[in-house]
Amino acid sequence: MKKHISVLGSTGSVGRQTLDVIRNNKEMKAVALTANSNITLLEEQAREFMPEVVSVMDEDAAKELRIKLSDTNIKVLCGMSGLVEASTMDKADCVLTAVVGNVGMLPTFEAIKAGKDIALANKETLVSAGSLITEEIKKNGVKLLPVDSEHSAIFQCINGTDNAIKRILLTASGGSFRGRKREELKNVKPADALKHPTWSMGRKITIDSATLMNKGLEVIEAKWLFGVDVSQIEVLVHPQSIVHSAVEFADNSVIAQLSVPDMRLAIQYALTAPERIPCSIAPLDFSAGMNLTFGHPDTETFECLSLAYKAVELGGTLPTVMNAANEIAVERFLSEDIGFLQIAEVVGECMNAHSIEEVSSIEQLMEIDLWARDYAKKIKL
Amino acid sequence: MKKHISVLGSTGSVGRQTLDVIRNNKEMKAVALTANSNITLLEEQAREFMPEVVSVMDEDAAKELRIKLSDTNIKVLCGMSGLVEASTMDKADCVLTAVVGNVGMLPTFEAIKAGKDIALANKETLVSAGSLITEEIKKNGVKLLPVDSEHSAIFQCINGTDNAIKRILLTASGGSFRGRKREELKNVKPADALKHPTWSMGRKITIDSATLMNKGLEVIEAKWLFGVDVSQIEVLVHPQSIVHSAVEFADNSVIAQLSVPDMRLAIQYALTAPERIPCSIAPLDFSAGMNLTFGHPDTETFECLSLAYKAVELGGTLPTVMNAANEIAVERFLSEDIGFLQIAEVVGECMNAHSIEEVSSIEQLMEIDLWARDYAKKIKL
Repeated sequence: MKKHISVLGSTGSVGRQTLDVIRNNKEMKAVALTANSNITLLEEQAREFMPEVVSVMDEDAAKELRIKLSDTNIKVLCGMSGLVEASTMDKADCVLTAVVGNVGMLPTFEAIKAGKDIALANKETLVSAGSLITEEIKKNGVKLLPVDSEHSAIFQCINGTDNAIKRILLTASGGSFRGRKREELKNVKPADALKHPTWSMGRKITIDSATLMNKGLEVIEAKWLFGVDVSQIEVLVHPQSIVHSAVEFADNSVIAQLSVPDMRLAIQYALTAPERIPCSIAPLDFSAGMNLTFGHPDTETFECLSLAYKAVELGGTLPTVMNAANEIAVERFLSEDIGFLQIAEVVGECMNAHSIEEVSSIEQLMEIDLWARDYAKKIKL
Repeated sequence: MKKHISVLGSTGSVGRQTLDVIRNNKEMKAVALTANSNITLLEEQAREFMPEVVSVMDEDAAKELRIKLSDTNIKVLCGMSGLVEASTMDKADCVLTAVVGNVGMLPTFEAIKAGKDIALANKETLVSAGSLITEEIKKNGVKLLPVDSEHSAIFQCINGTDNAIKRILLTASGGSFRGRKREELKNVKPADALKHPTWSMGRKITIDSATLMNKGLEVIEAKWLFGVDVSQIEVLVHPQSIVHSAVEFADNSVIAQLSVPDMRLAIQYALTAPERIPCSIAPLDFSAGMNLTFGHPDTETFECLSLAYKAVELGGTLPTVMNAANEIAVERFLSEDIGFLQIAEVVGECMNAHSIEEVSSIEQLMEIDLWARDYAKKIKL
């Protein structure tokens, strides 16, 4: 039976790779595509995949696209309401959420309520609203499938033996600045931070990789996805990005997942699990010279990782604040308003200024998210 | 419910470690112990574990042990009939076969017919009688569980997804002489070959590790255990013995199993699978400095691996001949009757002298086994 998929964020890096996976699998069909503003690419994708619905965040862009696609039957929606309509439409079995940032929260939540399985590439959703999302997932009896390569790896390693997990070993490439000390990072530029050694990804996540905040977000995501305590999650620096993560079980046996660094594997597995079907990624080459190394992260230099552990340990609404502040801090760094080391400063200051509340609703989280963004924008350094 | 286990070969290396696992698990009970000739240790084990039955191959040793254990209710058996009685007794749920060499074949076969699950550490049984054993396993609806660390690793990696196996990556430490060339191996002594870099094992298997015949036997064993074609099994040299094997699936995702090199993990998993319970082995230490390397084996120097591939590709009774000839060749090397490189010569010559037959019965295989042993003993080099 064909799987009908709503792809939220189809013009981004993960979105484009998702469409590549769908293109290569006759059993998959994209029924909705959404984008932030890139209507040139969205039109191209719409003409190739012929979804029922497309949606753009920007209203003017939506109007323009409506004219461009007037020769088709494709419905063009816009804004948050369009995104929610795309994620809850009757035709979809599964929603792949590849939008960047907190904007993914509401459509994911509504999709779960509408009984859709969720393939989640938007890590901010779980970081911010993990308790609400996992509760809703259980209530609606749908599946939550990880698309991040690390969480896909953990999911593949566990493969039904959740009850015996002792420790999750979350690997990190270490990002663009692995091995450097604070002194060497004072004056680095956005262009330096955007040179990721092993993965080709979007700008926000590449900066998050360089600060290790990406790993911090993944630690929190893993806690919610796999129902473990954060003390059971250990980050390992593994510069080759071949082992995408591993799980240590009760008997001290470690199961690891390896592959070339290519997101299409994780995307495809989220859409086919527990089945495996041929994938267009290259096989691993184990010839002489394959050398896999592991070590501990330098959390003194890369403070964002410690901030993430602190946020999830203290819990409540603090991870929402951390995540929102980080989005702003990364933007400020990319526009050269603040330095690289000041990303952690902005996030830390914002976290300190927040009075932690218990999480009660998406609305509450969205309000706190707005507060944190506003606060983070105004911090003078 | 307590698991009742017959341990065949309880005084050998794997047997002793099996008893260590049983000692640490209240849910396991040894109901039979058997040994070749070491009655001092067997008596000690019998007094600790209080099985219903013990058995010794040697008749005089059995008489002596009967006197030693006369103050207990333990039944003392002897010879092949004793071994078979121990492996088929009513009380046993599972037979762990850790005897060395072809002597394990008959008791394993009879245990399967008696409806026992088999935890197999005796690789010669599958190498020699793979087709008969797997047929009988199916017919009797029992489980065949691997105890070898490599096959346990593969079994753990597959974890129910047998249908999508693309390639098995069987790791090899490379043995005592890894990296050496033929010229350097002409005059090595048994004592040199017995120094294994990472595993502490019995004498026969340590020599088999040095010649890579052990890996050859494991390739054949893997073919039968996992129902793959031998062309799907690739040997990788991995000197650190941390990754015990890996499986590549249809989507090019590789799942690997890692642990410290300690047989007790594989033994325990064979007795608890698919459950995992705490095990007394040390956890892996992923601190800075863990460095895992992989490469291809040097089959020009270590010809036994190629002989094993040839034996299983040509099939029929040839693997039986190869295995029997290898047992004799290793004995001849250990007694300094032949050199290290001549092990492969003896095996190869014996294989060439054999007219391959289709496998039809255990009796046929035992006869051919005897012929090959006799032939291998007489080869003049």
